[in-house]
Amino acid sequence: MEKGRLEAFSDGVIAIIITIMVLEIKMPGAHHDTLQSLIPLYPVFICYVISFIYVGIYWNNHHHLMHAVTSVNGAALWANLHLLFWLSIVPLVTKWMGENNFTKWPTVMYGVSLIMCAVAYAILVIILKKHEGPDSLFTKAIGNDRKGRLSIVIYAVAILLAWVNPCISFGLYFVVACIWFIPDRRIERRILDNKE
Amino acid sequence: MEKGRLEAFSDGVIAIIITIMVLEIKMPGAHHDTLQSLIPLYPVFICYVISFIYVGIYWNNHHHLMHAVTSVNGAALWANLHLLFWLSIVPLVTKWMGENNFTKWPTVMYGVSLIMCAVAYAILVIILKKHEGPDSLFTKAIGNDRKGRLSIVIYAVAILLAWVNPCISFGLYFVVACIWFIPDRRIERRILDNKE
Amino acid sequence: MEKGRLEAFSDGVIAIIITIMVLEIKMPGAHHDTLQSLIPLYPVFICYVISFIYVGIYWNNHHHLMHAVTSVNGAALWANLHLLFWLSIVPLVTKWMGENNFTKWPTVMYGVSLIMCAVAYAILVIILKKHEGPDSLFTKAIGNDRKGRLSIVIYAVAILLAWVNPCISFGLYFVVACIWFIPDRRIERRILDNKE
Amino acid sequence: MEKGRLEAFSDGVIAIIITIMVLEIKMPGAHHDTLQSLIPLYPVFICYVISFIYVGIYWNNHHHLMHAVTSVNGAALWANLHLLFWLSIVPLVTKWMGENNFTKWPTVMYGVSLIMCAVAYAILVIILKKHEGPDSLFTKAIGNDRKGRLSIVIYAVAILLAWVNPCISFGLYFVVACIWFIPDRRIERRILDNKE
Repeated sequence: MEKGRLEAFSDGVIAIIITIMVLEIKMPGAHHDTLQSLIPLYPVFICYVISFIYVGIYWNNHHHLMHAVTSVNGAALWANLHLLFWLSIVPLVTKWMGENNFTKWPTVMYGVSLIMCAVAYAILVIILKKHEGPDSLFTKAIGNDRKGRLSIVIYAVAILLAWVNPCISFGLYFVVACIWFIPDRRIERRILDNKE
Repeated sequence: MEKGRLEAFSDGVIAIIITIMVLEIKMPGAHHDTLQSLIPLYPVFICYVISFIYVGIYWNNHHHLMHAVTSVNGAALWANLHLLFWLSIVPLVTKWMGENNFTKWPTVMYGVSLIMCAVAYAILVIILKKHEGPDSLFTKAIGNDRKGRLSIVIYAVAILLAWVNPCISFGLYFVVACIWFIPDRRIERRILDNKE
Repeated sequence: MEKGRLEAFSDGVIAIIITIMVLEIKMPGAHHDTLQSLIPLYPVFICYVISFIYVGIYWNNHHHLMHAVTSVNGAALWANLHLLFWLSIVPLVTKWMGENNFTKWPTVMYGVSLIMCAVAYAILVIILKKHEGPDSLFTKAIGNDRKGRLSIVIYAVAILLAWVNPCISFGLYFVVACIWFIPDRRIERRILDNKE
Repeated sequence: MEKGRLEAFSDGVIAIIITIMVLEIKMPGAHHDTLQSLIPLYPVFICYVISFIYVGIYWNNHHHLMHAVTSVNGAALWANLHLLFWLSIVPLVTKWMGENNFTKWPTVMYGVSLIMCAVAYAILVIILKKHEGPDSLFTKAIGNDRKGRLSIVIYAVAILLAWVNPCISFGLYFVVACIWFIPDRRIERRILDNKE
């Protein structure tokens, strides 16, 4: 089965997810034209930025993953839809967290949605590895997906720490985004070395 | 006529349909940050999951159908738009059913929208079969579309049973989703054998 | 300049236009689960159907037009954006007409948006004809665009007749949709013969 | 790395941005069917037109840029997402400016969002130039990007003049749109000559 339409459909869904988040930001209406009227929007805006980066990272990784793959099977189509499902939940939780100024439960649920995306991505990788075979170029190129597993661990820690202080959780979500965002792999290695 | 743009346009419309459903879920606003405030959302969320699966199934089937086709004609373009029209109705009825906790009429209308999608899909298959010719690879690959006709029968039964109990109807909608979702064809055959 | 990305972008915009219209239909909320609660929606639904058909016709024609073209230039990119602009106005006027039960001004403005789409399409055709040259296959395939000019005339008549009765106008909008929708060209010819 | 999916994803996001702006225009509801009821919408509509043109210009330029590029790297993917982020902010500020009739702060923030888009575009050009190399066809085709730098200067002047009169700022935003829109390069040169 060809991978072209799976890429096109995923591009469409991710493009919509990344842009509908901005629709959730309610700008002040008529007769609220001061700079002060924008101040209450700052937590929503910060959440938009971090979610934009997260969805951007998933698009980037999806791009690399599908580039390495030679073909897809029925199971991969469903694993891909499963990933898109959890990505589509991100805008909802983003809005909830932004409107409630990073209180406990919204921050926990944001972490849950991120952990589900990471798990769905890991499932997709496993299915594609099985489909391509253990000796394929794809399996060698992907490696053992340390970054992915490390992210799931940090998300889990962040969720638990929300009972201490939700700001620590949000900080950890930001750390994971940086791990994926910064192309320099030395930073990632240093964190992994510290853990081992 | 080439099939490339028909695929691209259908991908775009289905991608939007599958993601706008999530926009319909109204998260609790500011100062509603407890886990309890999410509880009233569970029927809407269940409906979102089932509709996501249904639209995903249609995308999957559309993918396979268009893969097998060699070219399209004007009638196929309109049959495809007809299918997209009924798919676009799904998010509306999903929201109505979710907000009314699976009462009779929303459950009936959900079934009607699913049956119309199934009929529109069957029309598209018939037009493509006629266009490709009875001896084409396409006609042989598609077969006699037992699954499609079985689905329409189950939908019709589910709609009638909504007068007894809408939960049975919803259960049957879920059964049809499973028939399409589960790749193992033995389950499907067992159901078909039981009916024959 | 290649036409691939112009097609892809147009597909995206038209796909969004055709599906956001359904977002404008406000289903009855919680505790409104009877069939009667759907009755007030029927004018909005009729408007959705006719606008869906109209946007579908434009996508269909755009598909044929771009299929015949060999390349595009800067002017064609802007003429295409101009067409997309007027198509994006259609959902707005559709909603206004549907919510006001086909009264005079909404029906007039719907006609104005349709006439602007038709004019924008005609401009795109002229620019592409000039770009391809008078002896090109494209110019011969498109012909003298009788259907397009006839549509503009009927829209203008429909707009004027809104002062008599907006239902006549809506009927004429439906007639134009049929002219484009029905593939049999004899119907179109009969109407043209009657006018000449 | 191939450029195909970057183009497809950007097309998707820009198509959504350009069409969601129209969703922000709130048409008068039921029982407001006079021409007078549309009059309060004119500033929102003007803002929609100018933002549609601006996003159209960015799509046009993106189209030309990506056409000239032979391949992309990881940094270009992120520079492209950065550009899409600032473009996604445009609909928000457009709505705010339209609803407040071009008062000071909304006009300033509109200018800020335009300047950020222009800066993000310039960063993308720099990264692509570095990736393609100084002797590549791409670097020669793009030139020294006078138009881009001139735009940033005019935006900055327009933002400062909002403290004098926001209408002058809006006029200058319109001038920049014309510089990009009008294909005749002599107008641009005259402006540049006057500045030098």
